[in-house]
Amino acid sequence: MTAAQGQTPQPVLIAGRWRPATLRGTFQAENPATGESLPQVFPISTWDDCDAVLDAAGDAARQLLELPGERLGDYLNCVAQRIEHCADELVACAHAETGLPATPRLRDIELPRTTNQLRQAAWAAAEGSWRLATIDTQADMRSWYAPIGPVAVFGPNNFPFAFGSSSGGDFAAALAAGNPVIAKANSSHPGTTQLLAAQAQEAAEETDMPRGIIQLLYRLEHADGQRLVADPRLGATAYTGSRAAGLALKAAADRAGKPIYLELSSVNPVVVLPGVLAARWTEIADEFTASCLLGTGQFCTNPGLVLLVRGSASDRFVAAVAARFDATPPGVLLSRGVQTSLQQSVECLCGAGAERVTRAAVPEGSGYRCPNTLLRVDGARFLADPARFQTEAFGNAALVVVAADLDELCQILKQLEGNLTGCVYSDPAGADDDAYARVARLLRPQVGRLLNDKMPTGVAVSPAMNHGGPYPATGHPGFTAVGIPAALRRFAVLECYDHVHPRRLPRGLSDANPHGSMWRLIDGRWTQDDVPSRG
Amino acid sequence: MTAAQGQTPQPVLIAGRWRPATLRGTFQAENPATGESLPQVFPISTWDDCDAVLDAAGDAARQLLELPGERLGDYLNCVAQRIEHCADELVACAHAETGLPATPRLRDIELPRTTNQLRQAAWAAAEGSWRLATIDTQADMRSWYAPIGPVAVFGPNNFPFAFGSSSGGDFAAALAAGNPVIAKANSSHPGTTQLLAAQAQEAAEETDMPRGIIQLLYRLEHADGQRLVADPRLGATAYTGSRAAGLALKAAADRAGKPIYLELSSVNPVVVLPGVLAARWTEIADEFTASCLLGTGQFCTNPGLVLLVRGSASDRFVAAVAARFDATPPGVLLSRGVQTSLQQSVECLCGAGAERVTRAAVPEGSGYRCPNTLLRVDGARFLADPARFQTEAFGNAALVVVAADLDELCQILKQLEGNLTGCVYSDPAGADDDAYARVARLLRPQVGRLLNDKMPTGVAVSPAMNHGGPYPATGHPGFTAVGIPAALRRFAVLECYDHVHPRRLPRGLSDANPHGSMWRLIDGRWTQDDVPSRG
Repeated sequence: MTAAQGQTPQPVLIAGRWRPATLRGTFQAENPATGESLPQVFPISTWDDCDAVLDAAGDAARQLLELPGERLGDYLNCVAQRIEHCADELVACAHAETGLPATPRLRDIELPRTTNQLRQAAWAAAEGSWRLATIDTQADMRSWYAPIGPVAVFGPNNFPFAFGSSSGGDFAAALAAGNPVIAKANSSHPGTTQLLAAQAQEAAEETDMPRGIIQLLYRLEHADGQRLVADPRLGATAYTGSRAAGLALKAAADRAGKPIYLELSSVNPVVVLPGVLAARWTEIADEFTASCLLGTGQFCTNPGLVLLVRGSASDRFVAAVAARFDATPPGVLLSRGVQTSLQQSVECLCGAGAERVTRAAVPEGSGYRCPNTLLRVDGARFLADPARFQTEAFGNAALVVVAADLDELCQILKQLEGNLTGCVYSDPAGADDDAYARVARLLRPQVGRLLNDKMPTGVAVSPAMNHGGPYPATGHPGFTAVGIPAALRRFAVLECYDHVHPRRLPRGLSDANPHGSMWRLIDGRWTQDDVPSRG
Repeated sequence: MTAAQGQTPQPVLIAGRWRPATLRGTFQAENPATGESLPQVFPISTWDDCDAVLDAAGDAARQLLELPGERLGDYLNCVAQRIEHCADELVACAHAETGLPATPRLRDIELPRTTNQLRQAAWAAAEGSWRLATIDTQADMRSWYAPIGPVAVFGPNNFPFAFGSSSGGDFAAALAAGNPVIAKANSSHPGTTQLLAAQAQEAAEETDMPRGIIQLLYRLEHADGQRLVADPRLGATAYTGSRAAGLALKAAADRAGKPIYLELSSVNPVVVLPGVLAARWTEIADEFTASCLLGTGQFCTNPGLVLLVRGSASDRFVAAVAARFDATPPGVLLSRGVQTSLQQSVECLCGAGAERVTRAAVPEGSGYRCPNTLLRVDGARFLADPARFQTEAFGNAALVVVAADLDELCQILKQLEGNLTGCVYSDPAGADDDAYARVARLLRPQVGRLLNDKMPTGVAVSPAMNHGGPYPATGHPGFTAVGIPAALRRFAVLECYDHVHPRRLPRGLSDANPHGSMWRLIDGRWTQDDVPSRG
């Protein structure tokens, strides 16, 4: 009998109340830095909890429709402020559950990023330009994007705050678009998600939001998750995580005609062209090492695949990166599952013929760790099994593909699956320009974000960001999970008002601009003005 | 042996050449006004034709990426002009294949609408604002919507020009967004589609477009259609037609992670509130009859479900509509299939308890016809089997549901599936305002376009149009099939350029506004200006 048995499981958050779950079972999180179970016991919910959550979310969604965007903005700002106020507790809990460094990572990078996102979303909700309000005065028609209904958010393991299901980008975007959130905690950090949901719930009370605007379940059987994303009461789902689990949810949602936005695996190819490699291989080895090992390599945009053309520079580069990898103490991985999966991916790549160029020594230090791993394979061998060589090794590992020449490198690019990002390093003086043109033409359609001379791990919360890309990196290439206002439109429906009496139009579609700052497309012109008076 | 046997089947259009199909079989269209087969023989293609079409479309897509939008605009304008030049031939062929009146419908309404759409799309392609170019100068990031790749268009039976796969709204939107089109003719009007594809192909030659910008197949086995929409070489699919066939294609595309935009069945509820019904029942009976029988009721937005509150006015209204239906000679239906399906739907509704209030007499006149049919059912009975009573009766039939009171009417609204449109008629003096508020709150989330005091059959090509709606009316509630620029964004991917050298940016994302008229969101402000110079 473990210490935890007999403990009362933590409550779930349903319809504004923390209450006991209807139990299918329980689980505990682990501290990946020690391998020890953490004391709290969390419930695995039955469908009854999902059912209650869906009913309450539907009620909340209807009430949210009546609130002006400014009220949602106040709410999101309040969530941000509360997160800052309990930063110590949040950082300690997230550190224990994820092994991510308390500082600078959790406290100084991820937490400010999270509150910044929430405040940007708050501003977008209040301001309303995200709705792309379109007014045709001649046809007497007006349209805009409006809330889609309750959004289920399945958060990933790697960003407990910034992508957390009760605090992160999807949470902020769904709410800013006017939808209640059903948060499904990531099972690796249920305590952090609970603390964040508590902030979101208290903020809801403080700002007088509908009950059920934020609800929390910790874990579901797979069948219940699939039933949840297909439920008629749900508006849409956002999922970030592994490909297998994501595709199972996608299949269920697709069959029911429910939008689901997925962010799945991505190997994020980096092409370093010969001219710049010869001139700058040491700096690029530094940049690559820093990017690839950041957060123990557990970033969605981690550069996991490097493409080079054979030559003395590529040998030097590979040796330089290997030396840096070997010299860097490997960080803790997020969980035993991540460690196992990383080991399996590396074995899979080696089994296919990739050669390990870093030491395979078992790393020092407690907890779940793998050695920093650099693998190398020739272009010809890659081309013999391109799908296998694109196996994502989520964590502190990368594969370098050394092509015989630029033609072979281009053949490899043609075999790439969809990815979130693709980087090309080229000679600033122009020596690589012809090669760049060939490479960019092939890489561009395969990636959501194309970078020059820069590693992909920084994901700025910019209106121009695309954190998305072609399948299977995501489920639809037209949407981004990061970047406001575009990320909000995932959780919206297009609504048209045809010949609707002026007094019955929503405020944002009325003649008067609601607050003088909302951008609207009126008779083909983007403007913050009112609709010109007729006649 | 029929007259057609032994005839050489009509050629398919692949990679810019009319050539013999690889045959799985042949078929002929019928003249629905006579029931007779039309003389031309058309091929049912094997997968080999699909394979060739996909290869050529991929080549064309890559070439289109290099062309400025103005060139696509020239192309689409040229298509419009050519369609006008051969209007006589097109109208004659479409009339023979669909039974739709040559005039005014085909020549004076649908053909001008089609060329108007093409010209609006041409303008959008040249002007570029549809791309929602977004520039963040501080983060040095730029994004916009870019072409998604070859688009397969499965056109419907009911608008041979305006929604035709080689001339209509999806064709225009896909091309304006920079994508080649693979047209799959509707089997009921292959000759019309061929004539239109010939115009599109000749326009391609005249304006020096890539070979394969428009290709045409007439008919495929279902399995080949499903393989086509899932092929890695394809970008996306647009389908308008029956729910069963559409959902089979959706399942195939979803499994492959390929976007598919569906426009399926819709009963388009019309609520006439008590105040306005008592005051204006004759005018509304006129409006409803005209809208419901327009094109023999074969409109996507045909009002097929009327919701009333019981009373003497509703009795008078039903009797008035029935009289008008009985007094109007029923038009020809598009095909034997439409006739059969309409008969089955009416039987299904009657079997569930709907009562026929129009005469069931076999209509006079040759060809495929059904009597104009008005059915009536009480609200309580509707609520006993709401799914069955929402069976679409595509054609000249409608169901009136008479609720006991407004509460029951609201219960019915809660049972509605997703629809393209929803109309509410209310007293202009305000007598229905409370009822309107209740009804609109329930109807709004179920429909893409909400109308006041107006029937839904006019679908203006307006930037503010939404010809879309919640599943199962379409496959995704965030997209519209009509309305420029929004319809173009279905066929686009979001592309981000992060730190990309200015000389390598696409023209529309460069500092200089390409032609001074493209709207771009620069640092949070929509503008037609250049990016301000730095420093």
